[in-house]
Amino acid sequence: MADPWESTMDHAVAIARKAGEVVCDALRGDRMVTTKSSAVDLVTQTDQKVEQLIIQSVKEKFPTHRFIGEESVAAGESCILSDSPTWIIDPIDGTTNFVHAFPFVAVCIGFAVNKQVEFGVVYSCIEDKMFTARRGRGAFCNGEPLQVSQQKAVEQAIVATEFGSDRDPEVVDKIFQSLRNVLCLPVHGVRGAGSAAMNMCLVASGCVEAYYEIGVHVWDVAAASLIVSEAGGVLMDVEGGEVDLMSRRIIAANSKTVAERLVKTIVAFSPPRDDAAPSDRCEDSTHLSARKV
Amino acid sequence: MADPWESTMDHAVAIARKAGEVVCDALRGDRMVTTKSSAVDLVTQTDQKVEQLIIQSVKEKFPTHRFIGEESVAAGESCILSDSPTWIIDPIDGTTNFVHAFPFVAVCIGFAVNKQVEFGVVYSCIEDKMFTARRGRGAFCNGEPLQVSQQKAVEQAIVATEFGSDRDPEVVDKIFQSLRNVLCLPVHGVRGAGSAAMNMCLVASGCVEAYYEIGVHVWDVAAASLIVSEAGGVLMDVEGGEVDLMSRRIIAANSKTVAERLVKTIVAFSPPRDDAAPSDRCEDSTHLSARKV
Repeated sequence: MADPWESTMDHAVAIARKAGEVVCDALRGDRMVTTKSSAVDLVTQTDQKVEQLIIQSVKEKFPTHRFIGEESVAAGESCILSDSPTWIIDPIDGTTNFVHAFPFVAVCIGFAVNKQVEFGVVYSCIEDKMFTARRGRGAFCNGEPLQVSQQKAVEQAIVATEFGSDRDPEVVDKIFQSLRNVLCLPVHGVRGAGSAAMNMCLVASGCVEAYYEIGVHVWDVAAASLIVSEAGGVLMDVEGGEVDLMSRRIIAANSKTVAERLVKTIVAFSPPRDDAAPSDRCEDSTHLSARKV
Repeated sequence: MADPWESTMDHAVAIARKAGEVVCDALRGDRMVTTKSSAVDLVTQTDQKVEQLIIQSVKEKFPTHRFIGEESVAAGESCILSDSPTWIIDPIDGTTNFVHAFPFVAVCIGFAVNKQVEFGVVYSCIEDKMFTARRGRGAFCNGEPLQVSQQKAVEQAIVATEFGSDRDPEVVDKIFQSLRNVLCLPVHGVRGAGSAAMNMCLVASGCVEAYYEIGVHVWDVAAASLIVSEAGGVLMDVEGGEVDLMSRRIIAANSKTVAERLVKTIVAFSPPRDDAAPSDRCEDSTHLSARKV
């Protein structure tokens, strides 16, 4: 059967590559940094420029489509996923890495229809690795099929996670409790690429068995979630059950077995949802107003 | 002035590249894993094969030179640094990464005379990056000069560290206390490549401002320590003062300022020294006997 979203996905891959070139060019120059929700939640002019580049390019070609973009939401746009075709964009996942030229930086473009991700594109631009997945048609890196690790013994797993940018002592307590529980399962090791999308692509590639995090945003994980599931992996909420991409909580694992072990190990908590009314997202001062795209 | 160790260093670079090819070939095949000091301290046949390949090649060319090699020490060889020319070898720094095909895996070759590192070679074989340093003559990656980051505000730093392979609750407590203290300085982020040498090369490259760890071994850090200092960085013990490569404790930073902030932040402890009598190294069951090379 012909794929109704084939040309849309082709456009996403092309614009991700172009965006990645802009990001890599910016890496060779000065990187002016400002902060968002905390002193360590960084944003640069390149984030904003690249998001606009992607949105403008899509709007010209698909004028009825909607957008959820990290920097647009930070500037007050809404973060509601409707049934309409919606592009979910993180112009630079791993902004802190970008600021430091740490080599894991990704342009993320997810595309959802009827609230279901139809395709995901994650371009790791320093490595020049283009990760793609189309629902029901597999996941690929530079055209090569991806397959998750077959290791189901968590004691022989590498688990990826991040500390995030929240330094509230109660949140840090919970993050450290989870981390310690996971480390002492024991696992082979804990790693963090500094980018949710890259951690998930490492799961899809079979290099790590699982990734979990509480505090991610829908734009960090929408595209990569499909790459994980199409590579044979499993998505789960940190308390078990189906993942909710707006909930800011995710486990991406190679198997149900490993994901369920993590559910028993992680100390769960619930940050304000991405689609909460702006007044409920008070932890983030940049989320003070919302308007439609 | 002619460099008395030029041809020795050329040999080290050539053998590191050859060793890296063996490691990359092995990545495409099955990787049989056994354990050493703990269930998560891994070793593979490739570690042993690559170390023998390096030692044999050096012995043929430089028959009077001595060796300290990770796998030879594990097999009972001595770990004493004398004044004689000594090759300090880690055939695969990041064995856990290697087992999982996580992309940071390095062949490390340091060369010391009169207990001073004269040159260091770290070959990140998956990335095909050859890091080199010759004392007094700078540090390079694939021939390009390296320079540490100029960022001296620790609050704007990325700090690299590792959890190590010791899961003794008291050790884990201290590692977590240090990590939490560092994270909440706050810093921009904490990363870990899963390889001491790679973390130190990230310091030398300017991608992270500092790396610290308690529990490393001399073969993990000897080569990379010169790469850091020749890139303009600073080495320090975790309690301040000069680093002692046998002490299993290290800070490698872009500056004295950042290193000294870490000294105030890290909860120090002292694992058994690498050059301790084998009976004092009781945490590691593979260190039960020692004999001369």
